[in-house]
Amino acid sequence: MDVPCTDPALGRGLLGRVSGPADPRMLPADRLGELAGEIRGFLIEKVCAAGGHLGSGLGMVELTIAPHRVFDSPRDALLFDIGHQGYVHKLLTGRQERFATLRQAGGLSGYLCRAESAHDVIENSHASTALSYADGLAKARALAGETDRAVVAVIGDGAMTGGMVWEALDNIAAAPHRPVIIVLNDNGRSYAPTTGALAAHLARQHHNGESAPRAGPVSAQNVFTSLGLAYVGPVDGHDIPATERALHQGRALARPVVVHVLTVKGKGFPLAEEDEADCFHAVGVIDPATGRPPAPPRRHRKRPAPRTWTGIFGSELLALARRRPDLVAVTASMLRPTGLHVMAEVLPERVFDVGIAEQHAVVSAAGLATGGYHPVVALYSTFLNRALDQVLMDVALHRLPVTFVLDRAGVTGPDGPSHHGMWDISVLGIVPGMRIAAPRDAARLRELLREAVTVTDGPTCLRIPKATTGHDIRYLARMDGVDILHLSTGRSLDVLLVAAGTTAADAVEAARALEREEGIGSTVVDPRWLIPVNPALTRLAARYRLVVTVEDNIRTAGFGTHLAQACTDQGITTPVHNLGLPQAFIPHGTRNSLLADTGLDAGGITAAVLAAHHQLLRCAPIFRTTSMRRPE
Amino acid sequence: MDVPCTDPALGRGLLGRVSGPADPRMLPADRLGELAGEIRGFLIEKVCAAGGHLGSGLGMVELTIAPHRVFDSPRDALLFDIGHQGYVHKLLTGRQERFATLRQAGGLSGYLCRAESAHDVIENSHASTALSYADGLAKARALAGETDRAVVAVIGDGAMTGGMVWEALDNIAAAPHRPVIIVLNDNGRSYAPTTGALAAHLARQHHNGESAPRAGPVSAQNVFTSLGLAYVGPVDGHDIPATERALHQGRALARPVVVHVLTVKGKGFPLAEEDEADCFHAVGVIDPATGRPPAPPRRHRKRPAPRTWTGIFGSELLALARRRPDLVAVTASMLRPTGLHVMAEVLPERVFDVGIAEQHAVVSAAGLATGGYHPVVALYSTFLNRALDQVLMDVALHRLPVTFVLDRAGVTGPDGPSHHGMWDISVLGIVPGMRIAAPRDAARLRELLREAVTVTDGPTCLRIPKATTGHDIRYLARMDGVDILHLSTGRSLDVLLVAAGTTAADAVEAARALEREEGIGSTVVDPRWLIPVNPALTRLAARYRLVVTVEDNIRTAGFGTHLAQACTDQGITTPVHNLGLPQAFIPHGTRNSLLADTGLDAGGITAAVLAAHHQLLRCAPIFRTTSMRRPE
Repeated sequence: MDVPCTDPALGRGLLGRVSGPADPRMLPADRLGELAGEIRGFLIEKVCAAGGHLGSGLGMVELTIAPHRVFDSPRDALLFDIGHQGYVHKLLTGRQERFATLRQAGGLSGYLCRAESAHDVIENSHASTALSYADGLAKARALAGETDRAVVAVIGDGAMTGGMVWEALDNIAAAPHRPVIIVLNDNGRSYAPTTGALAAHLARQHHNGESAPRAGPVSAQNVFTSLGLAYVGPVDGHDIPATERALHQGRALARPVVVHVLTVKGKGFPLAEEDEADCFHAVGVIDPATGRPPAPPRRHRKRPAPRTWTGIFGSELLALARRRPDLVAVTASMLRPTGLHVMAEVLPERVFDVGIAEQHAVVSAAGLATGGYHPVVALYSTFLNRALDQVLMDVALHRLPVTFVLDRAGVTGPDGPSHHGMWDISVLGIVPGMRIAAPRDAARLRELLREAVTVTDGPTCLRIPKATTGHDIRYLARMDGVDILHLSTGRSLDVLLVAAGTTAADAVEAARALEREEGIGSTVVDPRWLIPVNPALTRLAARYRLVVTVEDNIRTAGFGTHLAQACTDQGITTPVHNLGLPQAFIPHGTRNSLLADTGLDAGGITAAVLAAHHQLLRCAPIFRTTSMRRPE
Repeated sequence: MDVPCTDPALGRGLLGRVSGPADPRMLPADRLGELAGEIRGFLIEKVCAAGGHLGSGLGMVELTIAPHRVFDSPRDALLFDIGHQGYVHKLLTGRQERFATLRQAGGLSGYLCRAESAHDVIENSHASTALSYADGLAKARALAGETDRAVVAVIGDGAMTGGMVWEALDNIAAAPHRPVIIVLNDNGRSYAPTTGALAAHLARQHHNGESAPRAGPVSAQNVFTSLGLAYVGPVDGHDIPATERALHQGRALARPVVVHVLTVKGKGFPLAEEDEADCFHAVGVIDPATGRPPAPPRRHRKRPAPRTWTGIFGSELLALARRRPDLVAVTASMLRPTGLHVMAEVLPERVFDVGIAEQHAVVSAAGLATGGYHPVVALYSTFLNRALDQVLMDVALHRLPVTFVLDRAGVTGPDGPSHHGMWDISVLGIVPGMRIAAPRDAARLRELLREAVTVTDGPTCLRIPKATTGHDIRYLARMDGVDILHLSTGRSLDVLLVAAGTTAADAVEAARALEREEGIGSTVVDPRWLIPVNPALTRLAARYRLVVTVEDNIRTAGFGTHLAQACTDQGITTPVHNLGLPQAFIPHGTRNSLLADTGLDAGGITAAVLAAHHQLLRCAPIFRTTSMRRPE
C-alpha cells in the first residue's frame, strides 16, 4: 500500500513553516494541496506511532485549512464540536513540535484545550455542543456590538443526532440578525455510518448536490431551510477553493447559515477510508502499512491476548440474551466501544443504536421496559451525565427494570478530563431505587450482570473500566453478599478496608503491606453491590476501629459517603475514611499513572490507611469501647 | 362574562355517565359537542376552585375525546407528554369523582400517575419525553409481534423545543416499519407564545392549512417530511369529527406519522384564551368570573401582599443588571415563573428565553460567558438535572462565571415527585469549582446574589423555594462567613445545628425547644455558602459533642455529607448526623405538610436531635475528650 508520506520533519516542507493560522493564509492557492498532503503524511505517521483519533483528522485536513484562511482566529471564533476533529487545527496553530507528546501525561491533549492555545475555545469533548456555544457567543457579540467578529461552528453529521443541536438550531434560526456560520462536516458516519432520519435526509442532499455541486443557497427545501436557516452547499470538503468560496458566501449572507461540506473520513489513508466498522476512528499504536498493531517480540507471541472488561461484557450479554428472549440492548453511537456489536451480530433485531442521543437512549429503554422487555443500556460512564433526568424520572420514578452498563468507568486514561468516568456512583447514587454494582474481576462481571438482569422492580447499574481484566480475585467467604477477600492473621479487628470494584486488588496488596511492614491487621471486603449500602457492611464496620473505603469514583458523594452516613445513622462511631478520586478535573495520562497520582494504587491506599490509623491513635488515646458496640 | 357551565354534578349530563373511555366511543357523533361543553364547564369550575393547570386542559378537550374514540386504551397506548395535558384524560378514564381532590395530599395527582389508572403510561412530567417512550414502546410492540396495538404520543408544540424530540424523531422516522402516531397539539404557545424557529415553521404550516384545512398528507415539504415522516394536517383540534378522521388516516398509514392539530389554549374560557402572558397556564384558586383570586375577608385587606422568593430575586436581579452592563439572564421557557420577566421588561435585549431546552440554556450561557458576559441562568431545580453534563463540561471545566439560580428548590408542593427540587445540592455538589449558596431569608437572597455575580473564576448557584419569604432572621455574629443565629445560654457546647437555607427558622425554633424542654444547649449556624465546605464549620464542629445538619435536599450526598466527610478527613470524631429529604420520590401535598412529614419542621428537627443526643449518651458513657480537640 502506498501511504502518501512527505517528510514531516520540522523546518522542511510547507508545514514546517506554519507557526500560526496567518501562515496558510499567505500561501498561494496552488500550494495548498501540497500543504494538505504534508499534513496528512504527518498525521498518519504521528498517530500511527502514538495512537489517537485518526479518521476524523484525515477527513478534516482541507476543512481546517479553508476556515483558517477565510476567518481570522482567534478574533473570529472557530468552534470545533468534539476536540478529536481538532488535530489539524493544532498543527495550524503552533503545536507541531509538541505533537509527538499527544495524549501523553504532560503532553498535548487529545482534544482541544484552552491552556494550550488561544485558538481553542471549547475543550469539552462530549458531542453536539458547538452550536449552543455559537449561539451564546453570537449573542455576546451582538450585545458588545462586535458583529464583525464571525462565529463559526464546525460540527460532524454524527453529532447532529444529539438533541442539543435541535435546541440550538431552533434558537439560532430564530434570530436572523445574529450571524452564525454552521459548517456541517458530513462524512456520512459518526463512529459508524450515521444512522437515523437526518442522515438519510443529508444523503438525499448529497444526491441533489452531486450532479452540480453548487456553492449557493439551494432553493429546494431541506430540514435547515424549513427552520429558516440559509443553506450553502453541498460542497466537496477536500476542494479547498470550493470550500473557501462556500465559507465566504456563508459569511457574506450575514445571517445564520449552514454550509454543508462533504468529506471522506480517513481521506488519504485507504485502510481508513474503506473502514466500514470505523476501527480507524481512534487507534492505538499501529503499523501504517497494515493498520494493525506492530508484531510483538517473538517471545511474547504465544501468550493469549488479554481480555478486556468490554469484551467480557459483550460475550456474557450475548450468552444471556440467547437464553432470555426479553433481553434487549440499547446504546448511543457506542456499539463497538461498549462491546454490544457481539450481540448485534447474532441478534441484530434486539440491539438498538440510537445515535449520539443518551437522553433518548434512556427513555426509549423506558419505553421498551414498559412494553415488557428488559433493556441493557450500554454507555460510557461520562456520557450518562447527559441523561440523569431521564434515569430519575423516566426509569426510576416508573420503577422500570433497566440495566445500565457503564463502560469507561473510573480513570479512563489518555482521553482526559471529559472522558474519565468518575461521577457515576455519585450521580446514580441519588436515584431512588437504583442498585449499583462494581465487579472486581471477570468472574464478578459475569455474576453481577446475571444478577442485574433478574431485578424486575427498578433500575440497576454495573460499572466497568477501560482496561484488561487481571486474574480473578477469589473470596475467602461470602457473607450476606459481601465477599471477604483478606483477613489478617491475629490483629484483624483494626482496619476494615471496603474496596469497590477494580480497587480490590490494590486494597488486598495494601492490606498485606500494612500487616507486613506496619503490623496493622485488616480485613478487606468487596461488597459487590455498592448502593444501596448492604447492612452487613455497617454490622462489620461497628466491629473495627477504623473503616477505609476505596473507590475509583470521586470521593465526594461516592460510595464511601453512603457507608459513612449509614454508620452515623446507626450510632456507629468508627471513623469511616473515604478514598477516591479528587473533586477536580483529572488530566490525561495512562490509567495506571493517574491511579497512582490520585492515591488509588496499593502504595496510595497503604499510605492513606496508615495516616488515618495514626490520626486515630493521636486523637483517641483512651480505649474506645464505643466503636466495638453493635448497633441496636 | 359568560362561562359555559352545565351542571357537572355526577349522574347528570353526559359526563356523569362516562366511567371509562368506552363510553365516549359509544356516543353518537352529534352528542360529542355537548360532552365537550360539559367537560369544559366541569374543568373551569373545579380548577378555579382548587387551583391547577387550566389552559392546557381547556385546549385539549376535543383532542382527548377524539383519540379515546379512535384508539382503544390501554391496549393501544396513549402517551401524553407532560401530565398537565391529562386532565380531560382523567375525566374520561373514571376519575371524575375524585377530581375535587386534585393536587391535594392523598388526592389525585396533578399529572398522570400509573397508580391511579391503567390508562396512564407516563407519569414523568418533565417535557419532551413522550416521543422517546413511543419509540421504545413501538420497538417492544414490533419485537412482540403486536404491531396492531397502536402507539400514540400527544405532544405540545412547546415541548417540541426540547432536544429529546429531535433524538426521538431521528429514530422514529428512520424505522418506517414501526408505526408511531405523533399527535402534535399546536396551540402556538408553551408557557408563553412558543418562540424559536420551529414555532415559526409551524405557524407557516397553519397558514398553508388555513385556506383549506385538509386531513391528508400534504405534498409541500416541511421539517417532518424532510426527515421522512408522514404528515397529516393541519386540522382543527376543536372539530372532533375532523380530528378523528385525521387520526384514522394516521393509523391507516401504518408508518410513523405526525398528525398536526391546531388548538386554542384556554378554549372556552375567554380570559384564558386572550391571556398573552399565559397566567392561566396554571392557576391558584380563582374566581371564574374575574380570573383573579377571590377577594380576601375585609379585615385582611390592608395587609401588604407577602413577597415570594421568586419576586425578590426578580427585582434584585434587575437592580444589579442596571448597574452591571455585563449581566445577562437565560431561562428555559420559565421567564415568568422564575421572575426574569421583571428584568426582561426593562432590559429585553439582555434576557434570553431559549425554550424548553435546559441543555442549550446552559451551553449558550457558557458561550455568553466566553464572550465576556456574566449569565444568570434561572431554572427550576428539578429541570437542572437535564443539564448536568453541560454544567460539568461546558461551564465548570471551562471555569466560566455562570450563576445558576434554582427556583422551586426543596419541597415544592402540589406538583408532586417530578417537581420537587430535592437533588440540586447532591448533583451540583460534585461539580469541581461549583459554589452553592442557600439563602435563609430575603436579605440573604439579595446578599448572596450580589456575592455570586462577583465570582469570576467559575460557576455559582443559589437555590430558593417556591414560597413566600418570612421575616429576616438576623445573626448574632458572622464568623468567617458563617452566621451564628442562636447560642444557648450555658451548655452551648452540646449540639451544633448547621441549617442550610430556609431550614434555618425551624432549626432555631428546634434549638429553643431543646433548651427549654430538654435542657440541651445548642448553637445554630447558617453557613450561607454550603459548598465547598467552609473551614470555619469544621473548626466549629470539633468543639461540639454532636453536629446535626439540616437541609431540604435529599440527605444522600447532600450538604451534610460534605461536612461529615470534611470532619472525618481532619480527624474530628464528633458525629455528624444529617437531616434531609429521604432517598425516595415524594408525593404531592402542601409544602408545609410535606416538610413536616419528612421531619424537616421544628418538631422533626427537635426529635431528630434528641434521638441523636440519646444515642450519643448511650454509646459514649465515658467522657470523650477526643471530640473537643482541635484538628491539627
